[in-house]
Order: sequence, then C-alpha cells, then structure tokens
Amino acid sequence: MVEKVGIIGLGLIGGSLARRLNANGVEVTAWNHRPHPYAAAQAEGIHCVNTLAELVVFEPQALVLCNPLKAMPRILGELKPLLDEHPGITLTDVGSVKGMVLSQVEQAGLGECYVGAHPMAGNELSGWAAADPHLYDGALWAITVRPTTAYRRFLTIAELIVNDCGNRLIVLDSDTHDRAAGLISHMPHVVATSLINELVDNHDRNIAAALAAGSWRDMTRVALTDPNRTRAMVEEDRVNVEQLLRSMASRLTAVADALRDGDESAMGEFFAEGQPFRDYKSAREFPEGELAIPEQDWQRALLESACRGEAITGFIDAHRVRFRIHAM
Amino acid sequence: MVEKVGIIGLGLIGGSLARRLNANGVEVTAWNHRPHPYAAAQAEGIHCVNTLAELVVFEPQALVLCNPLKAMPRILGELKPLLDEHPGITLTDVGSVKGMVLSQVEQAGLGECYVGAHPMAGNELSGWAAADPHLYDGALWAITVRPTTAYRRFLTIAELIVNDCGNRLIVLDSDTHDRAAGLISHMPHVVATSLINELVDNHDRNIAAALAAGSWRDMTRVALTDPNRTRAMVEEDRVNVEQLLRSMASRLTAVADALRDGDESAMGEFFAEGQPFRDYKSAREFPEGELAIPEQDWQRALLESACRGEAITGFIDAHRVRFRIHAM
Repeated sequence: MVEKVGIIGLGLIGGSLARRLNANGVEVTAWNHRPHPYAAAQAEGIHCVNTLAELVVFEPQALVLCNPLKAMPRILGELKPLLDEHPGITLTDVGSVKGMVLSQVEQAGLGECYVGAHPMAGNELSGWAAADPHLYDGALWAITVRPTTAYRRFLTIAELIVNDCGNRLIVLDSDTHDRAAGLISHMPHVVATSLINELVDNHDRNIAAALAAGSWRDMTRVALTDPNRTRAMVEEDRVNVEQLLRSMASRLTAVADALRDGDESAMGEFFAEGQPFRDYKSAREFPEGELAIPEQDWQRALLESACRGEAITGFIDAHRVRFRIHAM
Repeated sequence: MVEKVGIIGLGLIGGSLARRLNANGVEVTAWNHRPHPYAAAQAEGIHCVNTLAELVVFEPQALVLCNPLKAMPRILGELKPLLDEHPGITLTDVGSVKGMVLSQVEQAGLGECYVGAHPMAGNELSGWAAADPHLYDGALWAITVRPTTAYRRFLTIAELIVNDCGNRLIVLDSDTHDRAAGLISHMPHVVATSLINELVDNHDRNIAAALAAGSWRDMTRVALTDPNRTRAMVEEDRVNVEQLLRSMASRLTAVADALRDGDESAMGEFFAEGQPFRDYKSAREFPEGELAIPEQDWQRALLESACRGEAITGFIDAHRVRFRIHAM
C-alpha cells in the first residue's frame, strides 16, 4: 500500500486519479497551475498546495505528472533540485506516448527516479469538472521501465496501480509501448482521417455521405475529434506511425492486386488472417496464474509476461504476482 | 399510393418490408422458398402463396426481389415468362450492389420492367424471426435507373418508398451507386480487416490488444463479422473497391512520407482536408425545397439533385417533388 501520493495537475486524468486514490484511503496532495479546482478538491479531503516545493516537502512515495505535455520541461526543471534533496520520491506520469516523456525526464536529469505509466482510461472531456474516480474502473495500465530502473521504484508504482487504484497492469519498455500504441491508436487515427478525406475528395461526396451507415460512422468517428490534437499525437509517435502506415498501404495494395487478378487464394488468406483477433474478442474465459519475478533481468521477464497476454492483478509479496491471461 | 405489392423472400429485409407495408394499409402478397414464416405472416394479414406464378397473377404494381443473391438467376428465369404476360408489374430489388443485379436482370430479359432499389437499413440479424417494420424508420433508399427506364416505372417505386414506406430517396445510376457504396462501406470493410491483420501479424500482438481502447474497437468492429459475407460483398464491387484501395494506400503513403520528411505543411493539409465532412456531421439545419422533374432526361436531373445533397421526401404531383438538403 502506498500511503502518500503527490499529483501534479488536476485536470481530467489527474483529478480523477486524485479522487480515486483519496476515496481509497491514500493521503493525496495536489498542485495545479491555477488554484481554481482547490476548493472542490479540498472539500473532498485532497490537500492542495501552491508550489511544487511544498508538494515535494510532503514526501509522497509517488509523484504523478498529470500536467499537459507542453508544461513538462518547465515542471521537470523546477522539480530537479527538489527531488535531488528527496531521493525517496519516485516520479511517474500518465502520458500516452512514453518515449518523448522519458527523453524529457532524462534531459532534466531525473531518469534515475522515474518510472513511466499510461492508464488506458479517458474520454472526450477535460478539466477538474469532468474528473471522476470511476474513470479508472476496470482500467489496464502500462508501466514502462528501463534496464537501469531500480526494482523498488517499479514496485512503488505497481503497488499504487494494483493496490490503491484496484487496476491491472503490464510492464513494457518505452519503445514497445509506443509501437503498440501506434498500432492500436495513432495509426488508426490517420486511417480514419484518410477515409473522410477520400469522401471529401469524391465528386459524389453528398451521395456517398447520404448512403453512409453504421460501418462508416464507426470507422470515421475518431476523425471528427479535434484534428490538431490528433496531429500532435501522431507526430509524437512519428517513427512508429510512419512504418505502420507503410505496412497498411502495402496490405491495401495487395488486396487491390488480388481483386484485379481475381486471386481467390490471396483473397481467402486476407480474410482468414485476422481470425486469431476475432477469437480473442469472443473469448469468455481468462485463465489466472502466478509469476515469480527474478532479481536479475526482471524487466525482461515482465515484458515476456506481457507478451504472453498476462496482466498483473495483484502482489502476493514483493517478488511474486498474480496475473490473468487474455491472449491470441 | 401503391395498393398491391408482391414480396419475394421473407427474410430480415423482405419480412420487415412486408410488415411495414402491410401495417401502412398496402395489400401485400409474399412468396418464400420455404413456407415456415407463412403462419406468422398470414396472422398479420400478409397473403402468402406457394408459387411465383400465383404471386404474379395477384397483379402487384411492384414486385420486390428480397431473395438471396445466389437464388437470383433461378428466380429471374422463372419470372421472365410470367412477367411477359403481366407487363404492368414493375420489378425491383433491395440488393446492396446494383450493377450485378442489373446485369442479371438484363440477362434474364427483364431489363425493361426493372428499377433498382437499395434501402439503407439492416442489422446483424437475419430471417423472418428478426423482421421488424421499424427496421426502415428514418431510412434513405437509393433508386437506380437507366437512360431507358420508363418514368412510370420509376414513379411506382418512388411512391412506394416515399408514400407507403414513409422514407426518403435519392435517384442514381447503378455505377454511381456502386462507387459510392464502395467508398462508404465495401472499401472500409477491407481497411478494418487490414487493421486486425496488422495486429495479428505483430510480434507484440497481445500487448497491443491489451492497450486497445475505443478508437480501435470502433474501427475494427466490422472486421469481426462473418468474413465470408464481407468477402462476397467486396468481390461483387471489385472494380470500385480496387480503385478505392489504391487511393487509400496512396493517402497513407503520403502521410508516411510527410512524417519522415517532417513536412509540416503536408501534415497540416492532411488534417484540414476532411473539414467539410466534420461540418457536414455537425450540421443541425437541413433546408427544404421543391424540384420540377423534366420530361426529358429526368434521370440526369434527379442524379444532379442527389449530387447536391437533396433527398426526396414527398411527391407534390407526378412530376414535382419536395426534398431536404444535407450537403457538404
């Protein structure tokens, strides 16, 4: 159990996390760049402070960066001398692209005390007013570590997620995280945007839009959200998205060729290839198990566990976890 | 008002149409390849017959093919001599790819009496048990005509849709219909399938699937349905789908290039291009108007109306319609 947590930024994600932890009995202290949510937060029992120095003096075991990405360099610069004096504090964040945050943290000289985190939770809203402790119900978190990450720092963040938030987690390195997020989110956002561009460019666009039904609506929904936010997300993960887009382009070209050539066997293979994912989605049973985490190379052991589809649901002791499997 | 309608096939689409027309006071006679839905249909007042000959003798103004595509050649062959003796009957259908049905109808020598139709309604169910007159609530139909289509035959089908079904319609030629349906349905189904294939092929597929959230779920939903049905739909519209897939592949490659080159201006244009569709989706006002249908070249006048985003909502007289505009 983590007893004291510091939250930087009381927006949707940070506010929801502060409220959830506070409701679960954790002592939460928060700082926000403007004090407007403080009255409401304090009424719930969340302690609010006016400077990052006050936040650090409170000695939280975990300090969670929930601020906007653009404020990161300034906040990290301010934290560096403060955290040097309080080496027990583990720094973490909730960003959706981990490589960029990691390099900012390293540039600020804070790599040693940092463990990355990314909760799979969120909605279209923003700000403290939308903060909801139930935002994290059933959430899975990705924790990102490096070969040099101290085990005790990983353990602090992992226990925070599993014990204090009541959530599941998988452990990755930043690169693996960003490649996977590129595949299931960033690249598909570009695909959805390309679909609406294809429609807009079509001479018969009003006719096509009139005929559009459920499949079109679902596949283009994410292209309707703020294009600037989508663009920023895609550009943060540009290397992975570039590669994934080229792979998708070559898949679509292969189907076009098969249609031109009447290649029955290529068409059959194309429609059969995704069957493991269809089976994965229809799975109703998720076997459980236990894993002993080795002292050496624990990062690789946990990455391999994630690869097998195992998500950590609890700690038996500091070196032994329970997991649930959902795998293809 | 069309007073007598014949329905061939009492599955989801045909059964729902029969029930809707019957509820709206139309005299409906139906034939099904097996008589199992007859008792339930007759209990509602739908007259059921055992042969196509009996259906034609009933002299419906419109005879609607709602049978599976694979039964089409046999049914059309049987109908040919019957319809030759009853030239007043207009033949129509509800298929989602119009070029293929048109060529089958022409091969059977029934082109003269045929007007195509495609209701934008449906769900994942099938069979009479799922038939529901509300399936057509708010539906838009595409009617497909040729330069040689007799106006009176168009009028019969259009009045059936607008007056008897209470729905809206647009008038197209088969090629325009199939290109538009390829854009908003058939091609996106291939894209969704390519996404799940990309996931399944990835070494870290269990990790990526664990991180998947709303955008991935929506964009791949249609890839989870029966892949054989999707494949058949794509292959029926193969020429259009091939071209659309090549266009999408080139859009994705262009974004990949812009990401590689750090081309800010290309990225900006990519995310701005679809704005007319975002505006279209957020439109809340749909102006109304009237259109006089010319005697000559009425097919082209109605196609141009559809291009402008006008959907026909009612007939003022046989040559004048009301429409509602939803346009980009």
